[in-house]
Amino acid sequence: MKKIGIVGATGYTGVELLRILATHPDIEITYVTSRSNVGMRVDDMFPNLRGFIDLEFSDPDTDALAKCDLVFFATPNGVAMQHVPALLKAGTKVIDLAADFRIKDVELWSEWYNMKHACPDLLAEAVYGLPELNRSAIKSANLVANPGCYPTSVILGLLPLVKSSTIDLKNIIADTKSGVSGAGKGANVATLFSEMGESFKAYNVAGHRHQPEIAQTLSVLADTHVDLTFVPHLLPIIRGIHATLYAKPIQNAKPVKNAKQTEKQDWQALFEETYKDEPFVDVLPAGSHPETRSVKSSNMCRIAIHEVSQNSQLVILSVIDNLVKGAAGQAVQNMNLMLHLEETTALNQPALLP
Amino acid sequence: MKKIGIVGATGYTGVELLRILATHPDIEITYVTSRSNVGMRVDDMFPNLRGFIDLEFSDPDTDALAKCDLVFFATPNGVAMQHVPALLKAGTKVIDLAADFRIKDVELWSEWYNMKHACPDLLAEAVYGLPELNRSAIKSANLVANPGCYPTSVILGLLPLVKSSTIDLKNIIADTKSGVSGAGKGANVATLFSEMGESFKAYNVAGHRHQPEIAQTLSVLADTHVDLTFVPHLLPIIRGIHATLYAKPIQNAKPVKNAKQTEKQDWQALFEETYKDEPFVDVLPAGSHPETRSVKSSNMCRIAIHEVSQNSQLVILSVIDNLVKGAAGQAVQNMNLMLHLEETTALNQPALLP
Amino acid sequence: MKKIGIVGATGYTGVELLRILATHPDIEITYVTSRSNVGMRVDDMFPNLRGFIDLEFSDPDTDALAKCDLVFFATPNGVAMQHVPALLKAGTKVIDLAADFRIKDVELWSEWYNMKHACPDLLAEAVYGLPELNRSAIKSANLVANPGCYPTSVILGLLPLVKSSTIDLKNIIADTKSGVSGAGKGANVATLFSEMGESFKAYNVAGHRHQPEIAQTLSVLADTHVDLTFVPHLLPIIRGIHATLYAKPIQNAKPVKNAKQTEKQDWQALFEETYKDEPFVDVLPAGSHPETRSVKSSNMCRIAIHEVSQNSQLVILSVIDNLVKGAAGQAVQNMNLMLHLEETTALNQPALLP
Amino acid sequence: MKKIGIVGATGYTGVELLRILATHPDIEITYVTSRSNVGMRVDDMFPNLRGFIDLEFSDPDTDALAKCDLVFFATPNGVAMQHVPALLKAGTKVIDLAADFRIKDVELWSEWYNMKHACPDLLAEAVYGLPELNRSAIKSANLVANPGCYPTSVILGLLPLVKSSTIDLKNIIADTKSGVSGAGKGANVATLFSEMGESFKAYNVAGHRHQPEIAQTLSVLADTHVDLTFVPHLLPIIRGIHATLYAKPIQNAKPVKNAKQTEKQDWQALFEETYKDEPFVDVLPAGSHPETRSVKSSNMCRIAIHEVSQNSQLVILSVIDNLVKGAAGQAVQNMNLMLHLEETTALNQPALLP
Repeated sequence: MKKIGIVGATGYTGVELLRILATHPDIEITYVTSRSNVGMRVDDMFPNLRGFIDLEFSDPDTDALAKCDLVFFATPNGVAMQHVPALLKAGTKVIDLAADFRIKDVELWSEWYNMKHACPDLLAEAVYGLPELNRSAIKSANLVANPGCYPTSVILGLLPLVKSSTIDLKNIIADTKSGVSGAGKGANVATLFSEMGESFKAYNVAGHRHQPEIAQTLSVLADTHVDLTFVPHLLPIIRGIHATLYAKPIQNAKPVKNAKQTEKQDWQALFEETYKDEPFVDVLPAGSHPETRSVKSSNMCRIAIHEVSQNSQLVILSVIDNLVKGAAGQAVQNMNLMLHLEETTALNQPALLP
Repeated sequence: MKKIGIVGATGYTGVELLRILATHPDIEITYVTSRSNVGMRVDDMFPNLRGFIDLEFSDPDTDALAKCDLVFFATPNGVAMQHVPALLKAGTKVIDLAADFRIKDVELWSEWYNMKHACPDLLAEAVYGLPELNRSAIKSANLVANPGCYPTSVILGLLPLVKSSTIDLKNIIADTKSGVSGAGKGANVATLFSEMGESFKAYNVAGHRHQPEIAQTLSVLADTHVDLTFVPHLLPIIRGIHATLYAKPIQNAKPVKNAKQTEKQDWQALFEETYKDEPFVDVLPAGSHPETRSVKSSNMCRIAIHEVSQNSQLVILSVIDNLVKGAAGQAVQNMNLMLHLEETTALNQPALLP
Repeated sequence: MKKIGIVGATGYTGVELLRILATHPDIEITYVTSRSNVGMRVDDMFPNLRGFIDLEFSDPDTDALAKCDLVFFATPNGVAMQHVPALLKAGTKVIDLAADFRIKDVELWSEWYNMKHACPDLLAEAVYGLPELNRSAIKSANLVANPGCYPTSVILGLLPLVKSSTIDLKNIIADTKSGVSGAGKGANVATLFSEMGESFKAYNVAGHRHQPEIAQTLSVLADTHVDLTFVPHLLPIIRGIHATLYAKPIQNAKPVKNAKQTEKQDWQALFEETYKDEPFVDVLPAGSHPETRSVKSSNMCRIAIHEVSQNSQLVILSVIDNLVKGAAGQAVQNMNLMLHLEETTALNQPALLP
Repeated sequence: MKKIGIVGATGYTGVELLRILATHPDIEITYVTSRSNVGMRVDDMFPNLRGFIDLEFSDPDTDALAKCDLVFFATPNGVAMQHVPALLKAGTKVIDLAADFRIKDVELWSEWYNMKHACPDLLAEAVYGLPELNRSAIKSANLVANPGCYPTSVILGLLPLVKSSTIDLKNIIADTKSGVSGAGKGANVATLFSEMGESFKAYNVAGHRHQPEIAQTLSVLADTHVDLTFVPHLLPIIRGIHATLYAKPIQNAKPVKNAKQTEKQDWQALFEETYKDEPFVDVLPAGSHPETRSVKSSNMCRIAIHEVSQNSQLVILSVIDNLVKGAAGQAVQNMNLMLHLEETTALNQPALLP
């Protein structure tokens, strides 16, 4: 049984980690921290865990955490980087669910996150924890930067196209919509029920932190600079992200996939082929419209690809549960890889529908 | 591996049965029926089941069903009773999630359900499938009537009081609130999103079919006629029932439970004692207010008991997920008992929160 | 044109006052205060008011407020009582939408509101602003205590019964459900979208501040002490209160209303008669189930009365929009009365449905 | 007092027309039809109208309708065209809220609406009822085709750009999101509360009837063929449309508007100038993100324009209430123009927020 610690377990990502790990047969949660709730029983805060988690919140003590095999940081940005060097030195593996190790360019990071990085030398070592992209690197990593929720949905939706060099990299639009839990559990007027209910809006059109994260990942994949227009919106649902992605096929590109042996690109086949061995990416039948509820509570990403208007526009629809594949579920998938456990353990459940 | 059939698997109860059974290690779903969707893949209708259920809907054929060890009927009222006699004769056990076998008095049943019963002689044999009440009978039953959703929440909330003869049986009020999925998946203007959203109402104040079901069960428990006022309401949520139960303590009754050795009844201790060995009833600490979301997707019933206004009024709060403990989860619990499997198999998961 | 001031206009009650008053032909809003937003345009905070309210938030200055004919306090409890003596002295009428002047017994008030009252001598002078009860007193009042939202729905639902002495005053239960906007616009984890959505719960079962307010009002009406069990719940909707009220008819009481000349009480006729001249109480046809959405955005209270279980139980269903008849709308109704304007001005609009 | 008839008043558009017209001082609703509810009181179906509409549903009789000055058709596609010729002949003006007269090309219309047009000769005469585009034509029209909900939000968001020839007409994307009431009040599994709640999805990516309507209108405006990619989504809210529009500025185009006298286009000034005299289009301050709730229940369209990524991408955000500016409100605006009443009568109300 591997010993697992969770730092900052009182937010939505934290409770979701606890929910998923509660039934994981190969690990044991030994240490759960919350600076402001020391001594409180975890299941007093989260009654859904009654009977599953018999622990109290502790102070985030590095020595205690260092006794774990792996520690998750489900903390605000800027916290993990304070503890990671000591933990790595002690031989404890780390998965940061915040953004401290997602951006390789430390100046770009500082610009978007408004702080100085505490351990820039670790940025190169950190592996971006998207298994569909970096599985083998994750398996041998000591430090994994768990991807953002929007980036997970957008990158998985674009990956087959960028990798196959079949779309115009200067003309990508990601119109994304997220459930409110993505905004966290902080006391905040803007995310009150009476503010978010029965309404919908875009936000941060001028710039969102997940844009450089997506651009960096796609650029590595394309081996050239990829920019994209990224517009996030807030949905009046608790869980779920829906990315609607617009891309232009490169004219006269040689078809990568073409099941019917014609000159036309077979986008459906390209996507199916790309993901055929992935346990948590599901390419839907041609013509489908994935619903966010089809992945609620599950680690699955479901994708549909449409070509509209006589080949001039690709529309990709990609849905995830922002707290699962967009956060805690993907983190557990990474943990399984890092600890050389079966990758799907504790994650292989049908979504809750309705 | 036990062979399991599901008749009428296209409604909310049906898909929930499939979701729960999908990961059950001791059974195999071999036959799933839907008269109007014969030949359609189950996961084409329910994309959350992609990768879990590799079956097509079949016609409800009695011979095919008779090859199963156990068959669930997740059908409208009046369907199960047409098939049950043949299945029982063939040695196949049956759990009816509808109301055909819940009411022992066939005339009362006909009055509330507006039809003639097809096999009244089986009513006596059918066991009311509330494990907290009838566990040993369920274990040896061939035919189980799975309780209604409201009755499950109400009976579990009142059972310790009725059993201990500590409340006035002529003065019980059940003010109950249910999520919309309880109304089923039929095309119906009244349950459209735009009708149910951002609103709340009572319905059937003059009489609801679950009232006689509750009254019958409590009367057996009390060994005298129990009536109660039952008022259902529709909540703008998908899953969840909250029962707010009002009862008057009998004055001068001898305390059944009294942890502090005084003359006063210790209601909290009474509830905790009653349910101390139950895997799916959780008595919350004194002063609690259970939320429906604390049981969403789970088979748990959470209960809190309050005494207000100087001993003159008990208020019991009882929450379940109407599709799980109120339907499919309880049915699987009953199946486990009937097939002599571990009672909690496939049901032992934390609720989804938030 | 009467000059109107609003103190504390940044909460939900404040913006609702502004919305309703924006089209009132006989008044002019001259002064709107918010201590923490001085200098900000009102319509920068509330874009729905763009083109309707051309004002900035000011500091709550007593001299400036005293230039108004009438001032609304849409402030937290304990604020109005600091300003009211000076305003009354200056000849400015006041409507407090908070609780400072609702409870006549100053000790009881202090017990429930945890503070010392700043002007207990004004409690006797303050009129409880329920027009259906105190219309003539309101017309000549200088200080009106606008009723709480729950009390408005509960008192209007019970008034015909209490006034006619036809129910057992020791056996009243008010099971009430409120939309989340009733909890206000403060930054609060408990009322976040992700906490309130897709869930339902009771709260404050042990005691809620509106219980003594209701009990006081009913006691005056009955001319004897009335207690009641009051259990509030939180609904996942923004606006709306639904009160489900349970009362026991007094056996052998002489029928007050009996359209059919029999010995049986005609409850429907009693309610219709009581409210026949009220512009904002609508008694629905017998057998109805009012929906909260049928009063959304409107100042109407809709009521239905049911008698169930062979005369032994009355169930009254009463719905209001908590921000309108439960707060700002009723306050404007009171203002109209106090300023001798037509009572229904600016309030006579159909509810928004769906 | 002008006499007004409404054909098909039982859907959401119908009840919204009744709500708005209920307080209109210059008209009188004299005839309201519903084939399947003849004889039923209108306020029995819509309790929000109790006290406002004292009418019963009648059969849609042409002679009776011809006594009206103006008739609204709030009917399914294909109904209005059966009655319009007779009504026009009788001198009764008509506004069709469905799509019978929106598309000028009768073959294109038949292709999208799957029926033969009953009076193709009237298509040329019908005026597309977007007052911001066709005000003077509407004033003298006898037959107005009320625009679709999506088209209203999209066209108003693009009009200043298309009119000024400043964007690439081959590269427009409209990512649109609508509340569920847009799908109507028919009994339909797909729009049940339990299907739509807590979820989000795109639909009709391959093609939606509103695409040709938008393309036709923009093409007339641009005097050249405009195509656009149109992707609709369903939001779990009742009312509201949010259009997120993506357009590419033409490089080196001469700035139309440039408040700061530089070479750069001033998009904000362009939008403000275009709509400065419009009563129902509100250009928000630069940097804004309009929320759908800021127009709930109101006839306003609120728009914000953003330029992102170094001039290479314009993002326009446009919100309306689909039942008001997207249907019944715009229809009343058209009625006011056609009957030479004040354009804003009965429509000049702040939105309901929260």
